[in-house]
Amino acid sequence: MAFQIPRGTQDILPGEAEKWQYIEQMARDLCRRYNYKEIRTPIFEHTELFLRGVGDTTDIVQKEMYTFEDRGGRSITLRPEGTASVVRSFVENKMYGDPNQPIKLYYVGPMFRYERPQAGRFRQFVQFGVEALGSSDPAIDAEVISLAMEMYQALGLKKLKLVINSLGDKESRMAHREALVNHFKGRIHEFCEDCQTRLEKNPLRILDCKKDRDHELMATAPSIIDYLNDESRHYFEKVQMYLTKLGVEFEVDPRLVRGLDYYNHTAFEIMSNAEGFGAITTLCGGGRYNGLVQEIGGPETPGIGFAFSIERLLAALEAEGISLPVAQGIDCYVVALGEKAKDESVVLVDKLRKAGIAAEKDYQDRKVKAQFKAADRLQAKYVAVIGEEELEKNTINVKEMATGEQVEVALDSFIEYLRKKLV
Amino acid sequence: MAFQIPRGTQDILPGEAEKWQYIEQMARDLCRRYNYKEIRTPIFEHTELFLRGVGDTTDIVQKEMYTFEDRGGRSITLRPEGTASVVRSFVENKMYGDPNQPIKLYYVGPMFRYERPQAGRFRQFVQFGVEALGSSDPAIDAEVISLAMEMYQALGLKKLKLVINSLGDKESRMAHREALVNHFKGRIHEFCEDCQTRLEKNPLRILDCKKDRDHELMATAPSIIDYLNDESRHYFEKVQMYLTKLGVEFEVDPRLVRGLDYYNHTAFEIMSNAEGFGAITTLCGGGRYNGLVQEIGGPETPGIGFAFSIERLLAALEAEGISLPVAQGIDCYVVALGEKAKDESVVLVDKLRKAGIAAEKDYQDRKVKAQFKAADRLQAKYVAVIGEEELEKNTINVKEMATGEQVEVALDSFIEYLRKKLV
Repeated sequence: MAFQIPRGTQDILPGEAEKWQYIEQMARDLCRRYNYKEIRTPIFEHTELFLRGVGDTTDIVQKEMYTFEDRGGRSITLRPEGTASVVRSFVENKMYGDPNQPIKLYYVGPMFRYERPQAGRFRQFVQFGVEALGSSDPAIDAEVISLAMEMYQALGLKKLKLVINSLGDKESRMAHREALVNHFKGRIHEFCEDCQTRLEKNPLRILDCKKDRDHELMATAPSIIDYLNDESRHYFEKVQMYLTKLGVEFEVDPRLVRGLDYYNHTAFEIMSNAEGFGAITTLCGGGRYNGLVQEIGGPETPGIGFAFSIERLLAALEAEGISLPVAQGIDCYVVALGEKAKDESVVLVDKLRKAGIAAEKDYQDRKVKAQFKAADRLQAKYVAVIGEEELEKNTINVKEMATGEQVEVALDSFIEYLRKKLV
Repeated sequence: MAFQIPRGTQDILPGEAEKWQYIEQMARDLCRRYNYKEIRTPIFEHTELFLRGVGDTTDIVQKEMYTFEDRGGRSITLRPEGTASVVRSFVENKMYGDPNQPIKLYYVGPMFRYERPQAGRFRQFVQFGVEALGSSDPAIDAEVISLAMEMYQALGLKKLKLVINSLGDKESRMAHREALVNHFKGRIHEFCEDCQTRLEKNPLRILDCKKDRDHELMATAPSIIDYLNDESRHYFEKVQMYLTKLGVEFEVDPRLVRGLDYYNHTAFEIMSNAEGFGAITTLCGGGRYNGLVQEIGGPETPGIGFAFSIERLLAALEAEGISLPVAQGIDCYVVALGEKAKDESVVLVDKLRKAGIAAEKDYQDRKVKAQFKAADRLQAKYVAVIGEEELEKNTINVKEMATGEQVEVALDSFIEYLRKKLV
């Protein structure tokens, strides 16, 4: 019986997996420099964590979640995103009491959404994200944004567009909300059913509507920017000032909104404008969520973060024609002639490996010629040949594949010889 | 509302996460040297994959699995182990057709079993494992075993015991099976109900029974070793010969059995005999499974592998009092005095980070003294102080914390100065 991989998921095979390692290693190293520490939360959480007051989006969120009952009858959900779990852990482990504020965390791991699979959309995808909890200094907003940009730029991406906006504080948002209601209410019957519900619940989300995007009232809708109070405007100016100082280019787009109540102040998105990247151009989204920690049961704590999918990052790299510098070849292949040499090659390969050298030999009883071919396929930098003759003389024949240079080396200095060559 | 982590799972927090990174990095590096390539399969698979002919263990396996229906009505299971998924991918991606045989793969990731949580047992745990598919050379058995041992030893573990056995080929197993039935059948009514079922279905598993372990017929039960045919005995001898050549110490234990039909020839376990390690002493288990690829729908293909849990590895390290050499501190903390210096410090920290230096500053509007304290808590190697005076002179004050040495450096050579110091 043949088994198939579940729909919307993928195997990451050798050749491809090295790219993932490279990106993750780069992300870890950047986080080390920016002083973000890794946190690993479970693959699933109690469903309630993801069903908190998500306003009028509840329905969508729920439909897209992998929710099930465990054998103890508890409702469990495979995490659809990372922030809720990180904040749950922040609260449960009382990290707000740690003197090292802000708490700067990062995560990388699989997330799950039951969506219709399509190009670039998977039901299991890997997100990298950071969260800085405990500071409301605009400098940390700039840090988080520039870290995201640095991640992309360090990988070689050039066709990037950073868009930022401010959603203001509660007061600013209330004022903007009122203006939105007044703007739309007279003609709300011309909008879709969802928008009609949104008018009372969360008018900000009308601006997000895909069905009504071309309605003439959309272009003239009041902009949050015009409703920011002094404090919010000042905060947003400081974020922009720091970004400018850091040499991070950005555009302000007042239409960049987030419908959830716990978002405020800074919101940002990084998009790829590489040709042929396709319809989904947003690579990374983030923003401030000063209300979230409290919503999850902790004390009032400011927070900001971002997340991006590695699948989409890989697609952006491909769209820009960037290949990551991942090494594929091995250092040395040991070719053995005859039964005695074959046994000896087991030991030699083991010694090479213990000396830090990537080494391989034949395990298929191949003839000499086929062993050479195998060495070739594995892109061995060196091929070492040992046979009856060499065994008697206690030597081994080492060929450097790039130059064709061949040297006979004493068996007991072979490891040292190669080690020096490979530095 | 406060949310709790699901029972039997854990958050891996900063301080602890670095140990995981270290172990995974070490495992990746070892695999590179041994020429095993990473494969990443999805977190869940179609349930059938894990329910294949698992003989009389079906029941146990099923009870312990996280199985649920997705929104499309397909039965999905969070993977309880790694081998089935890897072999599914091997078959689905026709890796058996690749000229580079054997296919040598490794994986590391979370696995899930709904067990009663207890010390050292989690419902989500992380397994590292390797599989070598396509070779029936006893040298590859020795390679796989020695790789597992090397992994533990490279981390500093000393109190290890490697136990090996041979389960023989089909013919040998049939002969042994018959001997077992004859041995137990006369008194099988003295055994537990499970064992009575096992007598016909899989008498080998009687030897595994925890309830009947002290029955007098157990000690005198026929040993598989005595029923190995010439080929199987020869195979087992070669494996031992290679292990000896590689300097790997082992014991042969004929009671080490695996109940599943697709296992044959080599079986092994690595145990910790560190004092106070507790009841669960097996760290790692592995063996040959020449029937598995066929069972999963591929052509007849030999295979061998092992898996171990990182949670248990960490427990073994703790039992031996080994602390991993993980760096926690940052390279440089920038202390700023005054508003202008504060803005400048944002830029300085950014430059340090882009130069590869782990740098941090204050985001809490702390007074100078508190900034120094923060630098201390973060174990900063250097503390750089910038104030009005320094800004005017275009300098910065750099203090090396280990020596107390203090130097005034020109602002535009500061990054270079630190970079050289930190090499």
